[in-house]
Amino acid sequence: MSGLPPEPGRLLKAPENFIGPEGVRTVFRQAREGRRDFLRNAFAAAVAAGAAPAAMAQANPVPREGGDPNILNLPEHSTGLGQGVATDGYGKPSRFEKNVQRRQSPGLTQTTQSSVSFAPLQSLFGIVTPSGLHFERHHQGWWDIDPSKHRLMINGSDDRLVKTPKVFTMDELMRLPSVSRFHFIECGANTGMEWGNVAVPTCQYSHGMISCSEFTGVPLKLLLDMAGADYRRGRFVLAEGADGSSMTRTIPMELVESGEVFVAYGQNGEMLRPENGYPLRLVVPGVQGVSWVKYLRRIEVGDQPWATKDEAVHYIDLMPDGRHRQYTSTQECKSVITTPSGGQVLLDQGFYSVSGLAWSGRGKIRAVDVSADGGRSWKPARLQGPVMDKCLTRFTLPWVWDGKPALLQSRATDDTGYVQPTYRQLRAVRGTRSIYHNHSIQTWMVQESGEVKNVQLS
Amino acid sequence: MSGLPPEPGRLLKAPENFIGPEGVRTVFRQAREGRRDFLRNAFAAAVAAGAAPAAMAQANPVPREGGDPNILNLPEHSTGLGQGVATDGYGKPSRFEKNVQRRQSPGLTQTTQSSVSFAPLQSLFGIVTPSGLHFERHHQGWWDIDPSKHRLMINGSDDRLVKTPKVFTMDELMRLPSVSRFHFIECGANTGMEWGNVAVPTCQYSHGMISCSEFTGVPLKLLLDMAGADYRRGRFVLAEGADGSSMTRTIPMELVESGEVFVAYGQNGEMLRPENGYPLRLVVPGVQGVSWVKYLRRIEVGDQPWATKDEAVHYIDLMPDGRHRQYTSTQECKSVITTPSGGQVLLDQGFYSVSGLAWSGRGKIRAVDVSADGGRSWKPARLQGPVMDKCLTRFTLPWVWDGKPALLQSRATDDTGYVQPTYRQLRAVRGTRSIYHNHSIQTWMVQESGEVKNVQLS
Repeated sequence: MSGLPPEPGRLLKAPENFIGPEGVRTVFRQAREGRRDFLRNAFAAAVAAGAAPAAMAQANPVPREGGDPNILNLPEHSTGLGQGVATDGYGKPSRFEKNVQRRQSPGLTQTTQSSVSFAPLQSLFGIVTPSGLHFERHHQGWWDIDPSKHRLMINGSDDRLVKTPKVFTMDELMRLPSVSRFHFIECGANTGMEWGNVAVPTCQYSHGMISCSEFTGVPLKLLLDMAGADYRRGRFVLAEGADGSSMTRTIPMELVESGEVFVAYGQNGEMLRPENGYPLRLVVPGVQGVSWVKYLRRIEVGDQPWATKDEAVHYIDLMPDGRHRQYTSTQECKSVITTPSGGQVLLDQGFYSVSGLAWSGRGKIRAVDVSADGGRSWKPARLQGPVMDKCLTRFTLPWVWDGKPALLQSRATDDTGYVQPTYRQLRAVRGTRSIYHNHSIQTWMVQESGEVKNVQLS
Repeated sequence: MSGLPPEPGRLLKAPENFIGPEGVRTVFRQAREGRRDFLRNAFAAAVAAGAAPAAMAQANPVPREGGDPNILNLPEHSTGLGQGVATDGYGKPSRFEKNVQRRQSPGLTQTTQSSVSFAPLQSLFGIVTPSGLHFERHHQGWWDIDPSKHRLMINGSDDRLVKTPKVFTMDELMRLPSVSRFHFIECGANTGMEWGNVAVPTCQYSHGMISCSEFTGVPLKLLLDMAGADYRRGRFVLAEGADGSSMTRTIPMELVESGEVFVAYGQNGEMLRPENGYPLRLVVPGVQGVSWVKYLRRIEVGDQPWATKDEAVHYIDLMPDGRHRQYTSTQECKSVITTPSGGQVLLDQGFYSVSGLAWSGRGKIRAVDVSADGGRSWKPARLQGPVMDKCLTRFTLPWVWDGKPALLQSRATDDTGYVQPTYRQLRAVRGTRSIYHNHSIQTWMVQESGEVKNVQLS
């Protein structure tokens, strides 16, 4: 249809009625049969509307002291005038949701220099993480930087790698062609406590260093093109943040050339939050969060990796033979059941909808299987659409709890065919001395009391 | 792969290195060639990191009074310790974004009984609307209802229409199988001021009664099944809200049977916000917002439409012959350019990325065309994925402004083939006395000064 004028025939055609031709005929017939009947009918509906809370009040009485027994016990919100639109122009969650918050782990050092807060996965729905609940990881605290003063520089390790180094203002960046994409971001240390058999109590603390947002920004390739980067020699870029930690990470050029990497200013429709890099951060889909450099102020094109402190001595994996795995930044295929999960209580037997999240840094989720017997038998879960690349995927499976102890597990498979391993399989290869990159199958034990706890199957 | 055990071969295979075999060889070679060189290299990167702000400071000096000229003028955030994780556990936007807020229109009556606030579309990215900026429309103010006391009743207009009427608690609803889906919600009165040639200044006021979220909840069909609804006779449902307005709307059963309609408790990952119906609202994809009844307390199954006050005398269209169009609840195919848009100023000539939103209550967006000459010529815009059913779709088009007056328009086509009409085409059919259901093509005039204003082409 592109480029063609609208078709007048289609426009002039009467729209289909929402309640259908029969519904319209009924309403019009009632109107024709007498205005009074029509109004009485409408009034009857209003009375029915008013009467409904009576039945509800039986289930949930809201008694009024000394009230007339002939007057329905309607709650105040059904009879009174509510609040007007908020004057501060930015809404907040309900006062009844104040326990849904990101939290610092009691088991980790809580210093401003190296702080982390976990997203409350057990209370979240779907795949979007509200920006107010997005996990935090700071290497020197967070800042609320004035965007009018922020700059992004593009330069080369030598003069030939970038022909015309550039410094962009935020306004300049925001005038360029943009992309918006849904991606997860996971800290490389997510589920790190579990390596050493420390079963932290809830999935907020075991898996809450992951979040998922719709990010908006400019493909880094476009900026490098504008600066005249040499893609033949320049096979790596260094991303550098403006906060006190001077975070620096090497990123291979092929990820930039694929168009996947972008410099983001938007998150879930609005500007990035200060804790997450306002006004500019790098988005490196599928790669651990530390590479998504916050407060991004500089991209350098180079012909070799930099081996900076943040990649040479941090975010590396101590193997059983005493050597380190390095540059294992891609987040492998992983999943976790968020309901029911550790710390929750099943109040009675019967039907539950098991629900959780799956993701892979290498592509899309192809399947998630769920076990209620610690991995002896599996059932395929339903994946909720849209299933997107390097993005959280919500899965659900109906389950009837018979009141006996159960071991709930989820196992994800991505579209490369890679299957999430058990703890035993992962430890057979990587030992128990790592902190980072644990993507094992998580087990929640439902006890007879209904209490759910974190257990590690040997 | 579903149901199969993990393949040990795949697990044991060493993961591909993030920086590639050549990058790893380079880093290891440097390490072998001498620990000192290796460290010096890392230190050089740190120095480069420290030096970068010097170039940035030239572009944007941060002078220190009486400072040593040999000391780099680094901003405080690059040298000091920032803030730790927030203690209230729920983040806020940057202090520099406080002008991005939902606003009441100066042109509308601002009473609590009938209040409305508009979403700042001109400042938003992608398709997700942050819940704090979601538009509001209240018919008797808003409430923050205690979810532990809220109930949803399912009953019939007579005993045979619903065999076993049910009252659900929120806990009961949240244990049932759920769906999460991205949908737009648009007030039927959105762009209503424009009918009478009132060109409101910004797209916040002209189009800001639309928002888009990932909603989570239980298909209404499942609840009706549990209550034993008679789908042969029961061809309609009445949805009723718990607030003082006793909002009631008729919804045809075929929409319920399709599985599209659900009772939602989740929005963008967390519970609904109080202004948007916490703890429960109806989601009726593609249908005007008033049918998405907030504070949902009752669903009644009936054999005919109710013709309640909210559908008999509100949200109807006064036609040129003095009659009303009724039950035209589906939101037709529509679009609007949000950047550049009314009230914005183009600071200079040159490249701009024209960006906007398109949607249709009848399905997916197939194409959006953009004109810079008031509709004489059109270019197809790029649609950003994922393009979802009854959901906002973001479109973009590169545009070079030559400094002369321009008339920017967007025209959407949905997957039924329907093309968004011009004002002239729509008024030829529906006159100028309507308030609701204006889905005409919007025109923004870019003046020579760069100022953008709302104009209506005759």
